[in-house]
Amino acid sequence: MFSLTVRDHLMVAHSFNGEVFGPAQRLHGATFIVDATFHRAELDADNIVVDIGLATRELHDVLGELNYRNLDEVPEFAGVNTSTEFLAKIVADRLADRVHAGSMGEGATGLSEISVTLRESHVAWATYGRAL
Amino acid sequence: MFSLTVRDHLMVAHSFNGEVFGPAQRLHGATFIVDATFHRAELDADNIVVDIGLATRELHDVLGELNYRNLDEVPEFAGVNTSTEFLAKIVADRLADRVHAGSMGEGATGLSEISVTLRESHVAWATYGRAL
Amino acid sequence: MFSLTVRDHLMVAHSFNGEVFGPAQRLHGATFIVDATFHRAELDADNIVVDIGLATRELHDVLGELNYRNLDEVPEFAGVNTSTEFLAKIVADRLADRVHAGSMGEGATGLSEISVTLRESHVAWATYGRAL
Amino acid sequence: MFSLTVRDHLMVAHSFNGEVFGPAQRLHGATFIVDATFHRAELDADNIVVDIGLATRELHDVLGELNYRNLDEVPEFAGVNTSTEFLAKIVADRLADRVHAGSMGEGATGLSEISVTLRESHVAWATYGRAL
Amino acid sequence: MFSLTVRDHLMVAHSFNGEVFGPAQRLHGATFIVDATFHRAELDADNIVVDIGLATRELHDVLGELNYRNLDEVPEFAGVNTSTEFLAKIVADRLADRVHAGSMGEGATGLSEISVTLRESHVAWATYGRAL
Amino acid sequence: MFSLTVRDHLMVAHSFNGEVFGPAQRLHGATFIVDATFHRAELDADNIVVDIGLATRELHDVLGELNYRNLDEVPEFAGVNTSTEFLAKIVADRLADRVHAGSMGEGATGLSEISVTLRESHVAWATYGRAL
Repeated sequence: MFSLTVRDHLMVAHSFNGEVFGPAQRLHGATFIVDATFHRAELDADNIVVDIGLATRELHDVLGELNYRNLDEVPEFAGVNTSTEFLAKIVADRLADRVHAGSMGEGATGLSEISVTLRESHVAWATYGRAL
Repeated sequence: MFSLTVRDHLMVAHSFNGEVFGPAQRLHGATFIVDATFHRAELDADNIVVDIGLATRELHDVLGELNYRNLDEVPEFAGVNTSTEFLAKIVADRLADRVHAGSMGEGATGLSEISVTLRESHVAWATYGRAL
Repeated sequence: MFSLTVRDHLMVAHSFNGEVFGPAQRLHGATFIVDATFHRAELDADNIVVDIGLATRELHDVLGELNYRNLDEVPEFAGVNTSTEFLAKIVADRLADRVHAGSMGEGATGLSEISVTLRESHVAWATYGRAL
Repeated sequence: MFSLTVRDHLMVAHSFNGEVFGPAQRLHGATFIVDATFHRAELDADNIVVDIGLATRELHDVLGELNYRNLDEVPEFAGVNTSTEFLAKIVADRLADRVHAGSMGEGATGLSEISVTLRESHVAWATYGRAL
Repeated sequence: MFSLTVRDHLMVAHSFNGEVFGPAQRLHGATFIVDATFHRAELDADNIVVDIGLATRELHDVLGELNYRNLDEVPEFAGVNTSTEFLAKIVADRLADRVHAGSMGEGATGLSEISVTLRESHVAWATYGRAL
Repeated sequence: MFSLTVRDHLMVAHSFNGEVFGPAQRLHGATFIVDATFHRAELDADNIVVDIGLATRELHDVLGELNYRNLDEVPEFAGVNTSTEFLAKIVADRLADRVHAGSMGEGATGLSEISVTLRESHVAWATYGRAL
């Protein structure tokens, strides 16, 4: 099994609902270092998992939809705790949509899985992985 | 599949038995950077894997049982090589006990797996993973 | 010359005024990984720069005054761009006050300089250094 | 399941064939930070995954066969894109051969899997994993 | 004193002349992780060291002049060992030229110093610093 | 001003005297990630700060004198707190002796300064710098 990972980052504000979150119930923010990993059983005709340029561009575009925003004001996330775990799934699902739409190239049809890790600090991070 | 990881560290002395260990048969020491990862299929009602505050506290407490000690003098480890691999299992098993005992909250009952990585240097680390 | 550094982090929301900031003029957020470095010419009677436990506690307390907040609503920062550079100075100045107030122990009177680095992402960081 | 990882690095020149590679079609180069991970279900009689000294030596030797070379001139790679993904497989396969040949010690017969990650920069890396 | 750092990277082929370089006399390559640091005594009117967007763009452009090339074939470097140290100076000098030419904005006239670090691996890096 | 840094590591046991050290008064241990930095105003005839191979070898040898030991039993350190700061000085001084003795090559006579950083964990490190 092969995989390729590209890294970018995201800077957002948000707040959480629920006593479990303590002071993070207040409006605060985070930089998420985002690692998107693409998996497949065999390499494509160019001997790669996916075009690293396209993967980088598509990840940047997906993060651009969220970047420099207050997630509390994004209609799609109304009433939702935009936890690190949840945001990992949002990024993975949107990348999956782009793979299926062909924006990562024809070779990307051979991808079997995507996993996304968001690092919220040097001491905490979350990952979501799914099939394609 | 989702996961959440929290990081802490541990500073211990120990020695090893066996020619394979070379100079590490002498009493020496290590800082272990410890990453504890909690896995589950779906997020809980708060949209998280586990309360990051509780996970951090429990990991710190588990490491506190070992921290600033000479592991050669810990009765439980008598006659045992406290290798990085072995210590990863000790930490994972003790975290698993705490999950089962409820000290990571009710939501933690949905956890399916724990994995623990101990980094002994910038060029070597070990991981142990187990079901919950 | 000796120095000792301790690391912690900070998660805040804020926005910037000025065209130079582009999309960062919107309310967004950041995790700052914060490194506080204490400098001195000679070690103290315990053979250290400063008590690492006290340095860690004081840095954590200084960051606690800012952590999990929207800096746009902190009266002290009204009308100020709370840039990474500026926040490095805030942290360094508050640590300096604590050194002078004696909260880092008597040995800390021998410190000559403080520098503080705030990493806002894996690709950007800022430092402020000052005499004590 | 246990694993042990050791890290080393590799500095090579190469070029790629195919429009997908853009400017990387020109002769250029890369430092690959190489992490070799050895997996097994249970620890051996010494309480380890594999002798870390032997694993480090064998990884260094495998990388030494490629290090400080122009991969375009290595006969074995004629007509092949020596992508990060592909090189991860080369390193993993050569380590597997060495495990089977006994150069990592008798205990290494218990290894079940090898995975190798090559980091080509702070923002891109690839992994290949295989059974033993 | 304040500073701001931005990070990018560079992938090149080259070879060295001189017995001191051992196997690195052969054509090989490197990824250089490049940190460009801008220093100044006081912040500008926007409360920053320099526009991070402009600094990032200019560093990327400077590296773009060298990226994906065989430095042995760059006329400017004929007969020169393009060591990590030397390349740090090249990048710093070219950034300094851009500061003086105004491409980092008017505020950049307040910069006093540039330093550039090139990391050639996880175990070796070089820095060059100069006044502006 | 130019500098070159090489990294290695050290694994030792030790204990501290003094209430300030809390639980670190017990025999424990540490991995120190060691960065040795060599400074000079101008590059040598080979266009480098110092031969990276020699610098790596000499650092490794200096660390080898301390590695896999209980520092409490090293006669030279009797009655001394072998703090991170203190050990940084030991390493820097021993490297300076080697520079003066010629073991880093003739070119090393142009070095002006050495600084050594020891990282005891991901959240604490110390540096000592001195002239040559």
